[in-house]
Amino acid sequence: MVRGASSVLLKPKTTEEVSAILSYCNQHKLAVCPQGGNTGLVGGSVPVFDEVIISMALMNQVESVDSWSGVVVCQSGCVLEALDQHVAEHGLMVPLDLGAKGSCHIGGNVSTNAGGLRLLRYGSLHGSVLGVEAVLASGEVIDCLSTMKKDNTGYDLKHLFIGSEGTLGIVTKLAINCPPRPTAVNLAFLGLQSFDDVLQTFRDAKSKLGEILSSCEFIDRSSLECVEENLKLKSPIEPHPYYMLIETSGSNGDHDEEKLNTFLEYVMTSGQVTDGTVATEPSRIQHIWSLRERIAESLIADGYTYKYDISIPLPHFYKMVEDMREHLGSSIIRCCGYGHIGDGNLHLNITSKEYEKEILSRIEPTIFEWTARVKGSISAEHGLGFKKRNYIHFSKSDGAIGLMKQMKKIMDPNGILNPYKVLPDN
Amino acid sequence: MVRGASSVLLKPKTTEEVSAILSYCNQHKLAVCPQGGNTGLVGGSVPVFDEVIISMALMNQVESVDSWSGVVVCQSGCVLEALDQHVAEHGLMVPLDLGAKGSCHIGGNVSTNAGGLRLLRYGSLHGSVLGVEAVLASGEVIDCLSTMKKDNTGYDLKHLFIGSEGTLGIVTKLAINCPPRPTAVNLAFLGLQSFDDVLQTFRDAKSKLGEILSSCEFIDRSSLECVEENLKLKSPIEPHPYYMLIETSGSNGDHDEEKLNTFLEYVMTSGQVTDGTVATEPSRIQHIWSLRERIAESLIADGYTYKYDISIPLPHFYKMVEDMREHLGSSIIRCCGYGHIGDGNLHLNITSKEYEKEILSRIEPTIFEWTARVKGSISAEHGLGFKKRNYIHFSKSDGAIGLMKQMKKIMDPNGILNPYKVLPDN
Repeated sequence: MVRGASSVLLKPKTTEEVSAILSYCNQHKLAVCPQGGNTGLVGGSVPVFDEVIISMALMNQVESVDSWSGVVVCQSGCVLEALDQHVAEHGLMVPLDLGAKGSCHIGGNVSTNAGGLRLLRYGSLHGSVLGVEAVLASGEVIDCLSTMKKDNTGYDLKHLFIGSEGTLGIVTKLAINCPPRPTAVNLAFLGLQSFDDVLQTFRDAKSKLGEILSSCEFIDRSSLECVEENLKLKSPIEPHPYYMLIETSGSNGDHDEEKLNTFLEYVMTSGQVTDGTVATEPSRIQHIWSLRERIAESLIADGYTYKYDISIPLPHFYKMVEDMREHLGSSIIRCCGYGHIGDGNLHLNITSKEYEKEILSRIEPTIFEWTARVKGSISAEHGLGFKKRNYIHFSKSDGAIGLMKQMKKIMDPNGILNPYKVLPDN
Repeated sequence: MVRGASSVLLKPKTTEEVSAILSYCNQHKLAVCPQGGNTGLVGGSVPVFDEVIISMALMNQVESVDSWSGVVVCQSGCVLEALDQHVAEHGLMVPLDLGAKGSCHIGGNVSTNAGGLRLLRYGSLHGSVLGVEAVLASGEVIDCLSTMKKDNTGYDLKHLFIGSEGTLGIVTKLAINCPPRPTAVNLAFLGLQSFDDVLQTFRDAKSKLGEILSSCEFIDRSSLECVEENLKLKSPIEPHPYYMLIETSGSNGDHDEEKLNTFLEYVMTSGQVTDGTVATEPSRIQHIWSLRERIAESLIADGYTYKYDISIPLPHFYKMVEDMREHLGSSIIRCCGYGHIGDGNLHLNITSKEYEKEILSRIEPTIFEWTARVKGSISAEHGLGFKKRNYIHFSKSDGAIGLMKQMKKIMDPNGILNPYKVLPDN
């Protein structure tokens, strides 16, 4: 879908080198495409024409870990999983986890405001990133690399760089607040008969698991079948129309187990959950997580995947999948839904043997209109990138889009930073 | 210190009225001063000359409470405590609490990015505010009132209005993510002999109380003496050089009590804590909290208070108080420190019988230089307002300040919104 024709790829090692590159490119009006782990799903990190690619892969140094405050300062090219392993030695964890952790960069996570599997517990990067150093299009370095949890001195500029997908500046360093690593982790895999039961079980998990609830994920039958058929992974329970993964993380294993048992007894006695299993050992936890994390990969074997990442108010959450399935009928192989139900974030995926323009035109803009009608978001955590920029008006007002364009103009007057991304074509 | 001479105060009831007022004022180049509960400590909500005051007091409607997601939408003039009581009926809590809760507005909290007593647990408003509706200087309404937990569609403009103290727009409505209200709350009041013990006890609280730690506050002897002498409140323990308040909030009272007992046994056996008491009943919890929350009020009885609100890396935290005390010698009545040690946020207060310019000149800019040297923040949670705007360069670089000025220019070209606030004089 997205393929550029760049002839130059640069790999700076320092902020000064990024500054020198941008200063040169800005003077010569050369467009650049900043690239982290290149794991984005909306074409945000892929050049469109002949942009100069600036890869952050060599800027992978951890600068400091403050074990008093839990604040970590690092360069933006650190791979998420490697950074998490690094801070684990200090009893900390990166407050972000997602399927692409083995290759995505923390700077890319920040630039795209990645959400992931534990936003429910640890909140968004707008809350946990304390400081950012970024280079503007002009080459000017903006130092907002505060390591303080509270710093109300003027406009909090770091938020301009969080989620703007490299179109307002290139993030070179960041400070992130890392919580203590939990000593006890449990994972329940549940089977449910109706979507109403899913919603009620989420509500019960919030009230009965309270502060130890660290993830609440949803998988429909069609998604699980895809993982089973295409990747030969085995479900630990019998087939059900709906599944949930509920993870707890805490500081006292006995307490957590007791809370989880109380919760499970409640939802099974009430009949909301008709089958389930609990994993405590790391290898079983890993296996169950792979059923959720590898769905995207399993879809590839079907042929072509039309991928959507949408926020929807919970009462409408699964209705969208049902409506799309009915709307598309037999023209497709699969229409399935899974995702972060605790955050109201649905990953809706549709597959066909190969890419068909006609199928796409039946999906879009219908799916975005549907989302706008229930006041959802047409991109929950993936961003707009190249692929979704022209649908922005389904989630943002003309006034807001106008203000975004003005900000782009003052921060990147020549438009060299990641062009054709985020903002709509004129 | 700050007193204007306004002859007009307007009390709009709707966003449309705010829009009409600003549109008129912008056309006629009339400066306005937006005012919430008027509880700020840096003169941000007080007119400087003859600004038109726009009071948000009548915009106090709660529009919706979504009990599935915990998201509340309300007008900006809701009083924090009233809003918290409202959401309590749905089993939720506002993720923000501070001494001024009885009169401050949630819109003022958002506009100043208030921190408060539980940021340690629930994070900053940049994380928990999901959407903002604001009116620009031109009268244009910017609708970014998303209620979704994840919404990555373009630049996240709401952050421009969080913490910009009404200088970029007036917040009229907001959506905030409210966590479940804890069913069990405990509060420990501890006495300690050294500041090293305070730091070690904070670290132990994080590891032993884990996910139920909801507040970690610090009070020095001089602060507690002030509350005892000036307000006749009684400390529950014998005099100590340092005190800590450690609060837990959770979903299971027995588990929380067990964790708290394990923690207390540990810190008392190790000798870090030499006296302490635990409160579980609401009235005793309230009394102990008042020892911390009423310090600011008690200082007033000394005469004049020079107030500072600073973020400092933990190893340097109390050294600042000691250095300032030594530096000021006998020219003052009291130099005391208390605050949110869990967030590295020190409230340093100095009193004298009456305001003396000479004392002020011995405090400032020394205190800001000291803070900048250890890479702290000269305003942790109070903002810059009128009083601290010209010290911004101690915490922000010239490049960052330049970018702030450009943003102000595009969003408020005539400079009518809360002039003489936040940004430094030219």
